[in-house]
Amino acid sequence: MTTRVVFCVSDHTGLTAETYAHSIVSRFQSVKADYETRPFIDDMDKLSTVVEEIDMVARQGTRPIVFSTLTDPDMSETLSKANGLVLGLFDGFVEQLGEELGLEADTTVGMYHGIGDVGTYQVRLDALDFTLTTDDGLGTDRYQMADIIVVGVSRVGKTPTCLYLSMQYGLRAANYPLTGEELESTELPQALHPYRDRLFGLTIDPTRLFQIRQKRRPDSSYSSFEQCTREVSAAERMFKANSIPTTDSTTRSIEEITATLMREADLDRKL
Amino acid sequence: MTTRVVFCVSDHTGLTAETYAHSIVSRFQSVKADYETRPFIDDMDKLSTVVEEIDMVARQGTRPIVFSTLTDPDMSETLSKANGLVLGLFDGFVEQLGEELGLEADTTVGMYHGIGDVGTYQVRLDALDFTLTTDDGLGTDRYQMADIIVVGVSRVGKTPTCLYLSMQYGLRAANYPLTGEELESTELPQALHPYRDRLFGLTIDPTRLFQIRQKRRPDSSYSSFEQCTREVSAAERMFKANSIPTTDSTTRSIEEITATLMREADLDRKL
Repeated sequence: MTTRVVFCVSDHTGLTAETYAHSIVSRFQSVKADYETRPFIDDMDKLSTVVEEIDMVARQGTRPIVFSTLTDPDMSETLSKANGLVLGLFDGFVEQLGEELGLEADTTVGMYHGIGDVGTYQVRLDALDFTLTTDDGLGTDRYQMADIIVVGVSRVGKTPTCLYLSMQYGLRAANYPLTGEELESTELPQALHPYRDRLFGLTIDPTRLFQIRQKRRPDSSYSSFEQCTREVSAAERMFKANSIPTTDSTTRSIEEITATLMREADLDRKL
Repeated sequence: MTTRVVFCVSDHTGLTAETYAHSIVSRFQSVKADYETRPFIDDMDKLSTVVEEIDMVARQGTRPIVFSTLTDPDMSETLSKANGLVLGLFDGFVEQLGEELGLEADTTVGMYHGIGDVGTYQVRLDALDFTLTTDDGLGTDRYQMADIIVVGVSRVGKTPTCLYLSMQYGLRAANYPLTGEELESTELPQALHPYRDRLFGLTIDPTRLFQIRQKRRPDSSYSSFEQCTREVSAAERMFKANSIPTTDSTTRSIEEITATLMREADLDRKL
């Protein structure tokens, strides 16, 4: 397996460069990437330090791959002379978009965020507050404010899914755990009745659930394979009987689960 | 203000396309973008539907901007014929990277994630569990497992920052609220003493804190301007007296705060 150092250079947080770099590099499955992010590179001094780092890696072995989202043309030019494969992620696209719009792009360094931010921050904070105060079946009296209510057995992935929905998409996501008695019938729990149209079920392969629960509480009845199998099938029966849309969390990342949920539940992001 | 419909088309979650689109479009500050994400477009049938949607928007007014991270060359080719400005985000870069590495890229549709996922999922889940069980000063007995402990007054942004650190970077981030008595001296609270090297302070402009707290609990002593001012300056004195690195959360997004914290505290991502 080849190992390559991958630099993500940005005049802002570096998140765009990182997301992009991961997407592209993971297409080459035999390459192991060693990621180094250099955020807030917003002047020539800081950039010089980064160029030196890149050159040093190159001298010690293979030249690094560099993903850049630098805005300033002079800085991009300087970076392109570093001893690496430098890929300017905005090169060309900004110009094409500018032509389409008949506008000039703003080249102020690090200037992606503006006055809109305080609003965005508040939407996310409110969503997050909602999700935390309605985690794991708490605060069902607040359900009328929910954008979505995620339902499922313990350890199916409800909390991370809901937190991702609120952090990333600004949605008020509550989650409701299905437990013992409720799972004995296919009846929807009382608290969920008024919100049928906002329910979304998460399910999982019982073998995977068994692994997760064993890690949490080894050799308990809670984590027994029988219990996991019984709960998962009972939950699935309940979802089916009540026409609740579901998705499977077994081998998927939180990003994949939430993107599926957004599409299936026809939700729009608020961020 | 011009409004344009922006499609993000992906054979996977669409997050790369979305992040990228936001970065580029926000460079044109007079444009209001109406984002439409179309994830999991992994066959020609689904793609046809998207092409029809694009063409329909074009017929009704201005042609849309389309950001695509499609992997399959035939599908990219089909999309490029839609009536929009179609920007293929991987175009060229994958080839350049392939040449550098001396390898062919995998073109399997939607194939960014593989066997590594279960491990990634577990790292994130563990980090998230840690963050939730140590939120707001809980579970200080678990601090020896923390990667970072975020310290600050109530409503400064500790919880969202910590959740973002665990969700996005896989870090075990605890947060500790500074309250009444502790703020009367510049002494570090007892529980934090053994972890001096892992502390990070969040601070905020008192006027902004006042706004946030007023929303939470209007016209209380907790949310009075005097209280906000007093707490913020006491916290800042404590950070200074104990050489705790800090950052200001006033006008910055969670992404910006965490990226700064990662750099200042010299942390490496675990995801």
